[in-house]
Amino acid sequence: MKIDKPSIPKGTRDFGPEKMLKRQYILNTIKSVFEKFGYQPLETPAMENLSVLTGKYGAEGDQLLYKVLNSGNYLSKVNQDDDLSEIKKLTHKIAGKGLRYDLTVPFARYVVMNQHEITFPFRRYQIQPVWRADRPQKGRYREFYQCDADVVGTNSLVCESEIIMMIDEVLQNLGITDFTIKINNRKLLTAITELIGEDGKEAAFCVAIDKLDKIGREKVEEELSNSGFSAKAISRLAPVFEMHGSNNEIVNKLEPLFSDSDLGKEGISEIKETFGYLNNFGLSQSNVKLDLTLARGLSYYTGIIVEVQVNNSTIKSSITGGGRYDNLTGVFGMNGVSGVGFSFGVDRIFDVMDDLDLFPKDFESSTKVLLLNFDEVALKESLKVLAKLRAANIKSEVYPDAVKIKKQMNYANKKGVPFVLMIGEDEIAAGKYQLKNMNSGEQQKLGLQEIIGYLSK
Amino acid sequence: MKIDKPSIPKGTRDFGPEKMLKRQYILNTIKSVFEKFGYQPLETPAMENLSVLTGKYGAEGDQLLYKVLNSGNYLSKVNQDDDLSEIKKLTHKIAGKGLRYDLTVPFARYVVMNQHEITFPFRRYQIQPVWRADRPQKGRYREFYQCDADVVGTNSLVCESEIIMMIDEVLQNLGITDFTIKINNRKLLTAITELIGEDGKEAAFCVAIDKLDKIGREKVEEELSNSGFSAKAISRLAPVFEMHGSNNEIVNKLEPLFSDSDLGKEGISEIKETFGYLNNFGLSQSNVKLDLTLARGLSYYTGIIVEVQVNNSTIKSSITGGGRYDNLTGVFGMNGVSGVGFSFGVDRIFDVMDDLDLFPKDFESSTKVLLLNFDEVALKESLKVLAKLRAANIKSEVYPDAVKIKKQMNYANKKGVPFVLMIGEDEIAAGKYQLKNMNSGEQQKLGLQEIIGYLSK
Repeated sequence: MKIDKPSIPKGTRDFGPEKMLKRQYILNTIKSVFEKFGYQPLETPAMENLSVLTGKYGAEGDQLLYKVLNSGNYLSKVNQDDDLSEIKKLTHKIAGKGLRYDLTVPFARYVVMNQHEITFPFRRYQIQPVWRADRPQKGRYREFYQCDADVVGTNSLVCESEIIMMIDEVLQNLGITDFTIKINNRKLLTAITELIGEDGKEAAFCVAIDKLDKIGREKVEEELSNSGFSAKAISRLAPVFEMHGSNNEIVNKLEPLFSDSDLGKEGISEIKETFGYLNNFGLSQSNVKLDLTLARGLSYYTGIIVEVQVNNSTIKSSITGGGRYDNLTGVFGMNGVSGVGFSFGVDRIFDVMDDLDLFPKDFESSTKVLLLNFDEVALKESLKVLAKLRAANIKSEVYPDAVKIKKQMNYANKKGVPFVLMIGEDEIAAGKYQLKNMNSGEQQKLGLQEIIGYLSK
Repeated sequence: MKIDKPSIPKGTRDFGPEKMLKRQYILNTIKSVFEKFGYQPLETPAMENLSVLTGKYGAEGDQLLYKVLNSGNYLSKVNQDDDLSEIKKLTHKIAGKGLRYDLTVPFARYVVMNQHEITFPFRRYQIQPVWRADRPQKGRYREFYQCDADVVGTNSLVCESEIIMMIDEVLQNLGITDFTIKINNRKLLTAITELIGEDGKEAAFCVAIDKLDKIGREKVEEELSNSGFSAKAISRLAPVFEMHGSNNEIVNKLEPLFSDSDLGKEGISEIKETFGYLNNFGLSQSNVKLDLTLARGLSYYTGIIVEVQVNNSTIKSSITGGGRYDNLTGVFGMNGVSGVGFSFGVDRIFDVMDDLDLFPKDFESSTKVLLLNFDEVALKESLKVLAKLRAANIKSEVYPDAVKIKKQMNYANKKGVPFVLMIGEDEIAAGKYQLKNMNSGEQQKLGLQEIIGYLSK
């Protein structure tokens, strides 16, 4: 029999125990905040019908969808004389399903399909992997988790303020403290294009200005010029690039600027209302920054948008972001569902926490104590002790084989188990067991109840 | 623009909030027991290279694998004059990856690829969906979760006994109490075929006897006869079918029966040793039943096997099962790795718990209290209160819009939120808020600290 040397698909990853424990720590933190704010879990299938996915992510997105071959004789609709060069037509015939590309479109599909059962406003969170046939590179994978929360069926800006509250709480709980939550309003961006005399070009404007952090003002202006913005219009953008001061100061500067624009006034008023709610919530706004150059790439945002950067990390990309959209479910024929949502980038948060050394130290193992295995007789006593430890909810295990003690200690070390319990002949006779702290090397003889008390701390 | 009416692929499911909360309850219970026993989490990618999957699940399994089209021009290796009727050859050219079919093969791949970094014995658990292009029917889906725990790199029967401990603890924690953990040993099944003079036919024997519960003794004997078992051999099976009594009594009857079979003696000795460990652990064995007719379909088991039935449920299929295997990683060229593993059937456990009405009653919502929204002024006070409730870790939300109170109450009812908090003009003046119990209708005026105390219970 030929033995294959096994491999893993390019751009995908195994998450072994150490990585998993850290990822679970991040995901559990996020989940518990989502739930504290009334968001409820949803899961959708990995495969969606291609008709649901196609056309939702632009032409490039369609390319990046993973398509799944129909089961059975997938060629049943193909003729031998079909032109194989017409790949799109052929794909349509042999693959009816694709892997989900994000969690937003499946959510919209779910809302439309269950609109009569759902109680609106509907707050849902969803934490699942997505797949993109992208070229793999550092920090970009073909399978990665998204971590979304959305509320649909309400226009209330309380929701926007709660998103900022949730972001703040998640990051604080993870120990990330030096961050900036940037906030802007798509309405202001549209109003700006009107103000500079380039009405209707807000899409190009957003795409260009979104790159400001990466390419700088000069290149952004160049890109705008290439997109047909007049030199005069670009020069009139100067106040946007040069807007400084506190959130209040910026709002005060903006109000006269937009005095003739209904959309601009609306945009400012929404920002003010959101800040007001944050005040009511008692959030210190030192981390929240109104930033007129924040645009976010996605085309479906229509109101307030947010994005978050960690200031003291080498990872400069945004770790979470989101915004208000007016018509998420419109593509599926259900109009008038306004909502607001955001997403945590789990991989990036992981990298930031690694970078800033924020993971708790006792994370290498979930096991608190390893019972050594001296021999068949001592093992019987160990199993009794083990049952008591577990009854007290202490994560514990016995080394299953009576191999050399050195090997067992080595196992504890490598697995990162912080305590080792020795139950040999002498210990059984004395009714006290040796508990060894694997970090300090300290060793003490304790009765079972003392051990339980000690390890429960 | 043409609007698609969205649909979901056949055999797949959305899990809305209510189902998700119940599923999470089951999965968290399982996870916490796995971790208490020293098992650590692993996740592998949804897609595996087809070379890893193909040939591992038999010819039928290969048919049921979902294949993923290569990205980009997947036809680059196909010629216009390729014979499209040779579907296997074509598949090989256009699809290099498939969706995982179970968690066992990906685990074996992971162990082989990481054998130099892993500390053995390696205890891992894995909770992820798998995909099978099966015909969908009641209780059978094309996407479903598996929930596996395996320990590899040890022959110790402590592991077998711990699997029984874990099964017992998970079911007890879920409130399932009337169950039978059936236990048998593949070695005994092999020894039986030798004893009745049908050496080498244990595969056919296992397949047939595995159906005993479903089709009855007569049909099993018929199937054995069709598989070439002699009438004499079948008649000699009578003691196996008619074996009754306590575990000890059965062991006592078996010992003389297998006095000439080394394999039989080994099989009995393993059973006795496992029962011995269960005694040491202090497990009452009233739920554990040695059953010589338990076989389990999978071919890779070589030692002790277990399976679990819930006695007082209408769902008769096994809800969890597993066993010892000697050579899981052999297909990938790494020999000598013995292990033992088992798997919980999440969908079946869900159905059993639904059937027996075992889900906790407060499960419809994760939200404990809804704050009503009277008007813009009262809302400001509500947000202050909300921040305090959340700081006390109480899952809470405010209705985002100041719509009719009836509509807000309706929302609380439909979402299953157990408490509603009313903060209107009078309440703000009095500094006491109305807390309404949505189940009893009872209403009381309380200060914030009292409310926090009350809802924290």
